[in-house]
Amino acid sequence: MPGGSVFFVFAIVWPPTMLGWRILPQRLTATLPVTAFEVVDHSLALAEATNALLRSLITVTGDRGRAQARSADERRQLGKRRGILDGIPYVAKDVFKTEGIRTTAGSKVLAEHYPQEDAVVVRKLAEAGAALVGKANMHEFAYGATGENQFTGTTVNPWDQRRLAGGSSGGSAAAVAAGIVPFALGTDTGGSVRVPAALCGVTGFKPTFGLLDSTGVIPFCWTLDHVGIIAGNADDVSVVIDSLTDLDVFGTNGSLDSLRIGIPKGWTSVLEPGVRAGYELAVAALKSSGATFHEIELPEHAESRTVSLTIQLAEALAYHSPLIALSDEKYGHDIRSGFVLGQQLSAESYVQCQRLLSAYRASFIRHFETIDAILTPTCPIVAPETGSSRIPVGDQLLPIGNALTLFTSFFNLVGAPAVALPAGTDDKGLPVSVQLIGAPGMDVAILELARHLEQELART
Amino acid sequence: MPGGSVFFVFAIVWPPTMLGWRILPQRLTATLPVTAFEVVDHSLALAEATNALLRSLITVTGDRGRAQARSADERRQLGKRRGILDGIPYVAKDVFKTEGIRTTAGSKVLAEHYPQEDAVVVRKLAEAGAALVGKANMHEFAYGATGENQFTGTTVNPWDQRRLAGGSSGGSAAAVAAGIVPFALGTDTGGSVRVPAALCGVTGFKPTFGLLDSTGVIPFCWTLDHVGIIAGNADDVSVVIDSLTDLDVFGTNGSLDSLRIGIPKGWTSVLEPGVRAGYELAVAALKSSGATFHEIELPEHAESRTVSLTIQLAEALAYHSPLIALSDEKYGHDIRSGFVLGQQLSAESYVQCQRLLSAYRASFIRHFETIDAILTPTCPIVAPETGSSRIPVGDQLLPIGNALTLFTSFFNLVGAPAVALPAGTDDKGLPVSVQLIGAPGMDVAILELARHLEQELART
Repeated sequence: MPGGSVFFVFAIVWPPTMLGWRILPQRLTATLPVTAFEVVDHSLALAEATNALLRSLITVTGDRGRAQARSADERRQLGKRRGILDGIPYVAKDVFKTEGIRTTAGSKVLAEHYPQEDAVVVRKLAEAGAALVGKANMHEFAYGATGENQFTGTTVNPWDQRRLAGGSSGGSAAAVAAGIVPFALGTDTGGSVRVPAALCGVTGFKPTFGLLDSTGVIPFCWTLDHVGIIAGNADDVSVVIDSLTDLDVFGTNGSLDSLRIGIPKGWTSVLEPGVRAGYELAVAALKSSGATFHEIELPEHAESRTVSLTIQLAEALAYHSPLIALSDEKYGHDIRSGFVLGQQLSAESYVQCQRLLSAYRASFIRHFETIDAILTPTCPIVAPETGSSRIPVGDQLLPIGNALTLFTSFFNLVGAPAVALPAGTDDKGLPVSVQLIGAPGMDVAILELARHLEQELART
Repeated sequence: MPGGSVFFVFAIVWPPTMLGWRILPQRLTATLPVTAFEVVDHSLALAEATNALLRSLITVTGDRGRAQARSADERRQLGKRRGILDGIPYVAKDVFKTEGIRTTAGSKVLAEHYPQEDAVVVRKLAEAGAALVGKANMHEFAYGATGENQFTGTTVNPWDQRRLAGGSSGGSAAAVAAGIVPFALGTDTGGSVRVPAALCGVTGFKPTFGLLDSTGVIPFCWTLDHVGIIAGNADDVSVVIDSLTDLDVFGTNGSLDSLRIGIPKGWTSVLEPGVRAGYELAVAALKSSGATFHEIELPEHAESRTVSLTIQLAEALAYHSPLIALSDEKYGHDIRSGFVLGQQLSAESYVQCQRLLSAYRASFIRHFETIDAILTPTCPIVAPETGSSRIPVGDQLLPIGNALTLFTSFFNLVGAPAVALPAGTDDKGLPVSVQLIGAPGMDVAILELARHLEQELART
């Protein structure tokens, strides 16, 4: 072996294939002659090479990533490897504070914001040995589902460069889809992890509210913000959740034989044909595993959307007010129009929406007396072209943000774990995605089901 | 013994003395030849005889009280006595829903409101065998600290009929102070249990937020409402809390030797001379037990009052809006002026106040790293004369409600257990009260300390 280089067992498939990266669970560890430094260097090179086109990253964090990779290699040499994520590169949406590294939330307002410490999740990943290679692009302050950004540039969908990657965690999803990193951190307030994962053909997981600590994450809306994970597949998402929490993600071996799946009444009548086909693939795959399907009633989209928006806008305004006073002119048009709406909201209506939230949560949990999980499409449409403003959904013409989050935002209101995973492509070759949702706290079960469905779909 | 009457061991001092009733803890049970029916009948007779003057009750619930007493006597005869409260009469503030018994919240709006079931706490007391003898008078919808009510009449202070009993649970405190019942249910959103207890010379306890279930209680403000207990002394309050919760209230035997008492900086500079003397009695009593005193800093009254009021008015309006639409003209002037204020509040300011609440809670809990309890006066003044509107407090002239709740409302913001207990009388013979506050969750410790201080004060 050449002098000085460190050959070791690395828990990753190397080199990345056309299908992107693959973190391997400990039990499948492969012996591959590659160092963490080489892996991270490859990730950084790909980030640099693709960013002018993709705009998946706002900042490439080469120094930090390489330093973390070198430390991982040193640990490996000393026989002190920390775990499965030691030396693995990742990106964090630019709302996660990073010590000494610019954290903009995709906004001109925070163009010179260099935090003094890491967000809790970033710190935990550093402790696990993961190497931060970039801060991912996003919809400004997470307020929007398209990933369009007039300051940082709009993230491009790696599957078709005329199309949107989605948002608000669009850079995170595009970076994973383009094979730059095997996983990414995102946040999800109404679908901001699951929507871009769906449009980019990767897997996005929003855990139970509060499972991943949001300390050190620039908030959009305290009541509904969830830290989430985007990766190439449900297994890799599970590996990351296993590393970041006390949950024993791979410890269960629940039988899926008599699984009862809830189907929200009326939700699938508005799907694009390609989305419908992918959704039916998932239904068929679960049926062939022995699952039964049961219609459930969830609140009207229009009502729950008003509740969601009222809480989002009031809380966003409460956070931004001091910044607006200082630098109003630096805000982009999307969030600025949100502020104008938010200023009209009364305390009374906010309180009433919070009361509705409690009622939603109570009745949502009761569904799980008769079902084990819920299956929905993630979005009613595939990735729209950049510049779209209204989208036909069923017999309605919906604003693009409403269309994209139609099936995701309710599950933020109830704080339930929800995973978006690929279910084939439509006739234009664009990814379709389905969503599995569990009762709050049932993260392990929903990840296990997602891994199972992924395997079933791989067979078809 | 006369035929048919039931002689039994009854856990109460009978007949009530000039000092009112006394529930005896099981360990002190006295043998007294009296039936629950006689006890409850006495309570009802006193209620009827005094109510034209005192206005402590909106409804006397003779049928229910007598039926519950008869059941208690039957159980006793069969050797199936339920516990210390079996057969004991009490009153509930008229916000506690009672099955088939009018529950008005002191308002014309609910003049014909006959609930279909009991509030949870009322049900638990029924299960313990306690006999409901009345629904206590109150400030309309609990919005006010004086107990004045233009519809139900203003509750009179049993110590001086020209003076206020306080509020909003004024009827509950007056009924205990007048010896009608040994204990009463109240609610406390900014001081509504502790203030009337203080003005009426009885003991009022607001437990940790949520310790007593508020299901079935007509809300004033979900974030700050606490169900509380008023009784003649700290021991009786403890007996009731012991019966209503899983806490082992008499199970501790903590040493009070090295007790560290926090004194909020600047709070005692504005006391009336008689209140100061009572407060100093309490300080001296605790010092003689070996306690040490430490100044602590709490938020400015003006700031925390704004936070409290914003949250109260927004939530009250959210609850009342549908009722206002139906019967605006039936509301009294106090709460109506609250609604007008509440309608001016923005969602943004409500959210900011909720954020401040979180900050208050975090910093409040940190105080308990260096102290064990806090001592304050309960009110800066003794019971004011009926018709007072502004009260001199230090060098300020405060609206009467602000004056009365000056030292109580902050502890609703932080959800801490707080007990108001008598500390002598002023030179006009009016009761003075001090308040002990613990860290959230430390209800048992704070009740034990209250019993100890009560004993010490009885010696002086």
